[in-house]
Amino acid sequence: METAHPIGSPYGLHRVLDPVGVLPQQARRLDPDPSPYADEVVVDVERLNLDAASYRQLREQHGTGDAVRAAVLAIVAERGKMQNPVTGSGGMLLGTVRAAGPDSPLGLAPGDRIATLVSLTLTPLRITDGLADWDGRAEQVPCRGTAVLFGRSIAAVLPDDLPDALALSVLDVCGAPALTDRVVREAGGAPAVCVLGGGGKSGSLSLAAARRAGAGRVVALVPTETEATAVRAAGLADEVVIADARDPVAVATAVGAPVDVTVVCVDVPGCEHGAIMATADGGTVVFFSMATSFAAAALGAEGLAADVRMLVGNGYVPGHAAFALELLRAEPGVRDLFTARETDRS
Amino acid sequence: METAHPIGSPYGLHRVLDPVGVLPQQARRLDPDPSPYADEVVVDVERLNLDAASYRQLREQHGTGDAVRAAVLAIVAERGKMQNPVTGSGGMLLGTVRAAGPDSPLGLAPGDRIATLVSLTLTPLRITDGLADWDGRAEQVPCRGTAVLFGRSIAAVLPDDLPDALALSVLDVCGAPALTDRVVREAGGAPAVCVLGGGGKSGSLSLAAARRAGAGRVVALVPTETEATAVRAAGLADEVVIADARDPVAVATAVGAPVDVTVVCVDVPGCEHGAIMATADGGTVVFFSMATSFAAAALGAEGLAADVRMLVGNGYVPGHAAFALELLRAEPGVRDLFTARETDRS
Repeated sequence: METAHPIGSPYGLHRVLDPVGVLPQQARRLDPDPSPYADEVVVDVERLNLDAASYRQLREQHGTGDAVRAAVLAIVAERGKMQNPVTGSGGMLLGTVRAAGPDSPLGLAPGDRIATLVSLTLTPLRITDGLADWDGRAEQVPCRGTAVLFGRSIAAVLPDDLPDALALSVLDVCGAPALTDRVVREAGGAPAVCVLGGGGKSGSLSLAAARRAGAGRVVALVPTETEATAVRAAGLADEVVIADARDPVAVATAVGAPVDVTVVCVDVPGCEHGAIMATADGGTVVFFSMATSFAAAALGAEGLAADVRMLVGNGYVPGHAAFALELLRAEPGVRDLFTARETDRS
Repeated sequence: METAHPIGSPYGLHRVLDPVGVLPQQARRLDPDPSPYADEVVVDVERLNLDAASYRQLREQHGTGDAVRAAVLAIVAERGKMQNPVTGSGGMLLGTVRAAGPDSPLGLAPGDRIATLVSLTLTPLRITDGLADWDGRAEQVPCRGTAVLFGRSIAAVLPDDLPDALALSVLDVCGAPALTDRVVREAGGAPAVCVLGGGGKSGSLSLAAARRAGAGRVVALVPTETEATAVRAAGLADEVVIADARDPVAVATAVGAPVDVTVVCVDVPGCEHGAIMATADGGTVVFFSMATSFAAAALGAEGLAADVRMLVGNGYVPGHAAFALELLRAEPGVRDLFTARETDRS
């Protein structure tokens, strides 16, 4: 290309082809042209990680052979992005920066290996290899092509000292420890903190973040004795208690004296009431689980006459990626739990 | 009764018959016996206000004659509470305090006319008049019987100086102005505030609360010119702007310079992105609309790389009922908007 593009919308509005005027995530079709606007970054794609719900739907409809490959290619050709039209979900991608416009605020340079932390549902994407290297049997899709990041997109440079898979599974949940850090510091005075689902990825990072931010009593609530043993061995909590997070009375009984901050990292529906009952009046509940019901939280607190502050877990906090990777490096207990989960799955 | 009851669970666990151990809202059956435990209050019921969704379902299934009356009686007889088994929703009630246990923390005395601010879905209820005075044609159900309030239930004494209907419509949304007041005071420094749906009940109260709490610029966003005229006449905002709250780009354009606090009072789905885009980094969005999607809010903020704090609008803030009624009395503009809405409906 010869002519420089002008500066784009930080939200990517200039890439929306249909219908014009909506945000890229709501659009039917984006413009994936790999020439960067002045504040954009263009990435040579290496791999797509499809959202689990999206991959499951595609596999159920198309199987694992040529048909599922053709289905993904058709979606990306038609929409200019990988957003499953049935589930509405996307995923993220890995790649290498090809070009960064002079006004990009992301701090990336050509050659940087990155993972995108914004969804594929709003990322302009072009595929150039026909997905020839993907056998359709996993949500990790080897892929050649290009993607575009806007001024307000988020990407993390992949660290040299950690395996890709480990770094990605940390980056996937990096909003949780960053917001936990902020909430615990704001609470002040060595607040008591409980993490529901303290044995999981976001849960173990949140436990470590809470302690480093100055929490007093740190309680991990987990569903099974096996998980309790692992969290005890990791040394991330003062108390490890066992209860079904969906049973409010059991949660309140297991936690005992109500805590100042409760962090919900259990990815099953129905944990709102237990989290509220575990929290002292004047305290804060941070909901990170995407299974959280807004109505259950709002009506639950009202029905329990609980004067608690309830936060929607925002996946974006400035510096969250570096913060989470640093926690993993500094806390052997967190790394042990992450590694154990990876091994369990394989 | 001769013997005094012991003190109950503040959450009403002692009234749960089936299944034992769950919270009253989740229970299939409660014990509606009108003898108070030491921390309970028993109310002589005057009227049930069925939740709109519940009444609509009952009317669609049973019509408006004897059948719908029989259906409500059967639910209450079987469950010991008025929780529609299809919609899961309840409503609230009006009545007069018959007896208050010596350890009740609610501050109520026999003879007080009250409205319950906790849902009928968790309120033990017995009906004694066969609903003879209800014609089935409205969600307001004249009713004789008894209800029970627990230690942590919430009830408001009905004021002498306001019509019941007006007081009830204020109490229905009284959490919104109370939390707006708190958030604006916490923000400090005369923060700019925008209320999406500023012409509605919770919206107009929130506008008045924001200004009294020390807000600087106060913006009301409404959907139509008619509503804009009414809000301008009420004098509750510095700026009244018109946009579809479901259109994020239109909202951001209409609001202009991002505000420090955005309060969402629009009861339609899809307002999350607009609220986030209207809010400055470091600011707060308070979601009061029950149509809010947790996932849309969480993923929206992440996709927009927006460092905003997002609060689930908790319907309970201590003192919220008195605070909202006082706003209505003190702000003629709020009362005008409430009265206009009541007139529109009749």
